[in-house]
Parts: sequence; structure tokens; C-alpha cells
Amino acid sequence: MTRPLRRILALTGGVGGAKLALGLANVLQPGQVTFLVNTGDDFDHLGLRICPDIDTLLYTLSDEANPETGWGRRNETWHCLEALDQLGGETWFRLGDRDLATHLTRTLALARGESLTAVTASLASHLGIPHPVLPMTDQPVATMIGTAQGELAFQQYFVRDRCAPAVTGFRFAGSEQAGINPQIEALLAAPDLDGIVICPSNPFVSVDPILTLPGMRAALAAASAPVVAVSPIIQGAAVKGPTAKMMAELGVPQDALAVARHYGDLLDGFILDSHDASLVEAVQSLGMDAIATPTLMLTLQDKMNLALATLDFISHIVTSNAP
Amino acid sequence: MTRPLRRILALTGGVGGAKLALGLANVLQPGQVTFLVNTGDDFDHLGLRICPDIDTLLYTLSDEANPETGWGRRNETWHCLEALDQLGGETWFRLGDRDLATHLTRTLALARGESLTAVTASLASHLGIPHPVLPMTDQPVATMIGTAQGELAFQQYFVRDRCAPAVTGFRFAGSEQAGINPQIEALLAAPDLDGIVICPSNPFVSVDPILTLPGMRAALAAASAPVVAVSPIIQGAAVKGPTAKMMAELGVPQDALAVARHYGDLLDGFILDSHDASLVEAVQSLGMDAIATPTLMLTLQDKMNLALATLDFISHIVTSNAP
Repeated sequence: MTRPLRRILALTGGVGGAKLALGLANVLQPGQVTFLVNTGDDFDHLGLRICPDIDTLLYTLSDEANPETGWGRRNETWHCLEALDQLGGETWFRLGDRDLATHLTRTLALARGESLTAVTASLASHLGIPHPVLPMTDQPVATMIGTAQGELAFQQYFVRDRCAPAVTGFRFAGSEQAGINPQIEALLAAPDLDGIVICPSNPFVSVDPILTLPGMRAALAAASAPVVAVSPIIQGAAVKGPTAKMMAELGVPQDALAVARHYGDLLDGFILDSHDASLVEAVQSLGMDAIATPTLMLTLQDKMNLALATLDFISHIVTSNAP
Repeated sequence: MTRPLRRILALTGGVGGAKLALGLANVLQPGQVTFLVNTGDDFDHLGLRICPDIDTLLYTLSDEANPETGWGRRNETWHCLEALDQLGGETWFRLGDRDLATHLTRTLALARGESLTAVTASLASHLGIPHPVLPMTDQPVATMIGTAQGELAFQQYFVRDRCAPAVTGFRFAGSEQAGINPQIEALLAAPDLDGIVICPSNPFVSVDPILTLPGMRAALAAASAPVVAVSPIIQGAAVKGPTAKMMAELGVPQDALAVARHYGDLLDGFILDSHDASLVEAVQSLGMDAIATPTLMLTLQDKMNLALATLDFISHIVTSNAP
């Protein structure tokens, strides 16, 4: 018999992670789930501080995400960008008019000395999001992509070059000097934290920037709550983004098992897609619990179903581990 | 008999000045007129450097000015501002989506270390403006409005409070440390400068910030070219803006004569509206030349006609003064 879960921490990056985050936000009570978001993609552009993963999550949780583009805001227009083009400005990073308000607000607040945590909390509050959204750190960390042609800043690789260069490795510049978000330290020590979810984000460039922060991986492992990850790979392919392509370029097998192995002993449990049920035993042999369940999230109901399955899995692990 | 005028310098502020500026730009050859623009209205807002008078001139000269609002850009939308409102941001200063591109471009270039002169030249070039547009100075000067309730920053007075407070005086903060635009010094010394026009802008808050710059008034007076001003007051009223209201509050007679007296011995000539022809003699008695001509500029043709009348007046003064 399982008791209801109390608080949940979810680590998330871009679009894939935000889908499960939305599911969790919908099946849990306000404040019950805390999101810890990758900031390695953050960069300065046109004098503005842009935090793509935070914004993807904020827009997704507030039903502001643009369903047509998969990024940016709903009902977006591009008049500022068009005018910027006329003035000779950079337009490769598509900033919509409504999206700009977020970057202006954040840049102004940071310039005033507010922390990224405080700014993000204010944005989330104004967007009506009832769950805490925390950047992984308040210090700047920049994900750098190693390629055969040299190292690229993340957005150059991801947006400008459309993930074309073959990756050779990753570096999280500034990570060694960055501190874990202080609210996360408190949450990890809280007795009512019942589960930690690694959302189906890119392990290399969405989750690893979080895990690489000094002390983060150890703090997650030391928490009494189990850590479970949801595979971003289904039948050897990523639903969206360069995860599978990166695995091939890095010489890693392109399957969910390799993702479970990548996270390794941090995990107490791993969730595979139903189509990968044949890998459950192999994952279990890594020393973690594993289940297979539908993980493709097309509809809101899909997202809520996967969230419920994830929470059930956590409850199961908590109960199994109970004295 | 008069010879064709060569180069012209025009001092200008906001909307009223920009109308004559457009007339001059249309009747003169590319590069023949240089505009020297008030920057006392400039301010930082939402982390952006905003130069209202420069932008009014740039938009007017490039046919980008919004004919409905009298400020900002044509075909403007307000999606960023609406989103900013949702996020709790300041929206009293109406920044349109297309207008924002100008402020982003300028702010970024200034942050890179470019001068306001260089940034403005680049904006003018991208907007296809064939005449030099120069800020009065590259250093920050802030027009402060003295009122019974205390001193107000210009945009607080002008936009936020809609010119409601009664003015008691003006201060141009930073003016003493600001240097005249270096290109103006060269132009004033140029042998082919044939005339200096003070456009029909507000004398107190559009033209005086220029004239108050250390050495500016003396340099204008020392130039061999005659200085002529066009009255912003017609039959005791301002076509637009608070000029007449300010005159009343300052205890100055609300008429064109008072404007001529305000500029005083800087002027070689003064242009009144036809309706104020009865004041011509009184202005002449101040020791300057004076004419009356239609100065209300509703159509482009009105603007070009006043520009031609102004240039004729300058030619007349140049010829009269010839040895």
C-alpha cells in the first residue's frame, strides 16, 4: 500500500522536459512540485539576457507556449525583429514581440541586482504558475559544444547552425564557480521531499549542466527521495532535438539503455517507453528499478498520464525501500 | 541678386521642429542640411537608451513617423508592451514593437562603446536618410523641469504627467560637463556654411538644451552664417506641445515676440506666422530682421514652402550683409 506523495523535485531542460513538467504541474497540487531548470543555454543577445529553458518552461506551464513553432510564445508577432533587420541588427535568433517583454523584464531586474531566482519567481508569479520554478544556479554557466571545427557557444550550435556540426564533447563554462540554487539545497534536505524526477530532456546539454554543478550530483544522490529518470529516447530516436544524433557522434549506442547508463548510480529508477520494454531487464541489471510505459506526449492527457505513471513508480520505489 | 545657398545647419527638437526639418530635407540636396538635435529628453527606460527627439527626426525624415499618434513609428503594434504589462513592467512610456528595434540597436551599440553620434549616423543610414543627423552632444544631458511640486525628469513631466504641473524653470543636468558635438564645431567653422535655422521647436526644452551647452551659443553667434529662428507660436498658441502653457506659467507674454526676445542677440532673423504680421516691426526693433509667412505645416507642401521661405530669408540676409 502506498501513501500519497508529498513534494517532488523535477529537473528539466527544454521542450521535451517541459512536456512532462506540464503533466506534473497538472496532476499535483499548487506548490507540490519544484522545477529545477537548466541555465546552460542562457546567453546575452542584443543586450538582453535570454534564458531559453526557463522561458520554455514558463510559457509551457502558463499555456503561453507556441504550439506551431515549439518555442516562443503563442500568438506571436515579429515586428521588432523585422525593424531590427532594417537597422542592420542580428536576426538569427528569433525574438518575438511578446517574448521580448520577458527578456526586457529579466535583463532590467538583473541589472538592478536581483538574482535570476528572484526574477524567475516574479515572472512565474505574473504568469500565474503555482509551482516554484528555480534556475539551477544564480551564476552564469555557458554550455559549450565541442565540435571538429572547434568549440561553439550553445545557441550558435543549436539555433544558428541547427545542430549540424558533429559533437565531440561538452564543457560547462563557469560551472566550477557556480553555486547550486540555495533553495534546492533546502528542498533536498526537506523530510517531505518524496521524489526527484529527471524529465526526458537531452542528457548531455539539458541535464548534465545541472548535474555538473559542484556538489549537485552528490546532493541529489544523498537525498532520501528516490531519483528516477524518464528516457528521452524512444526506439533509438529522440522525439525532438539532437539527443540521438549526439549519441551517435559520441559513439554511444542510440538507445534508452545508454541513457540509463549515462546517469548511472544517480538513479534509483528509470522509465522506458513501452516500445522499449525489451530493455527493462538490461536497465535493471544496472542496479536500478525500471518500468516501461507510454512516454510519447502529444496531448495534455499523455503528459498527465506519464506524470501519474512516474509518480506511481516513485511511490512504488518509496514503498519498496520502506523499513 | 542672391546666389544659391550651400550648407545649412538646422537646430531641432521634437515634432514641430521635425516638420520644418522634413521640408528642408526635401528642398535641399543630399548632405546639404545638417540637423543638430536636442538630446535633453533622452532617458533610460526598461534598460534601453531612448532618444525621443532623435527618433522623431529619424522617423520623420524616413517617412516612418506615425501620422496617427504624432510620435513613434508608422504601422506600429504594441504586443511587447502588452506582454510587459502582464509581467508587471512599466508601460506609461508607450514603446511600440517596431520602435523597440531602434532602442535595442542604440543601447547595444552604446554598450559596445560607440558614440551616440556614430549610432545615430548608422540608424540614419539604414533608414535611408541622406542628410547628417547629429545629437547635440555625445555626453548625457538630462532636461529637468522645475515645478511647484519639485523637480521632474523630462519624460515624467511630459509623458507620465502630460505636462500638467506648472513649470517654474529648467535645468539641464550634465550640460556643464558635456561637449558640443565635434562635427558641429567643424561645420560652424566651414566657409560654405550659409545659414543656421532654429526650427519651430519648444524654446525652453528643445532648443535651450542645445544653446546651453558650454560654448554652443557663442559658437553659433561667431559663425559667419546668419542665425534665423522660426516661431513655434502662432497667434499666441503653440501648434502642439506645452510651449504656450510654459510661457504663461513663467510669466512671459504668450506671443511670437517673446520667443524672438528669448533667443535675443543670437538671432539675425526671425520668421513669424502671417497671422502675426503685426508683430514684425516689434521684432525688428529688437535689432534683427523679421518676416511674416505661413508657418502652419499640415501638408508636406506646407513644410517645403516654409523651408523655401526660410532659405529665401537667409539668402536675403546674406545678400544684405555682403560687402
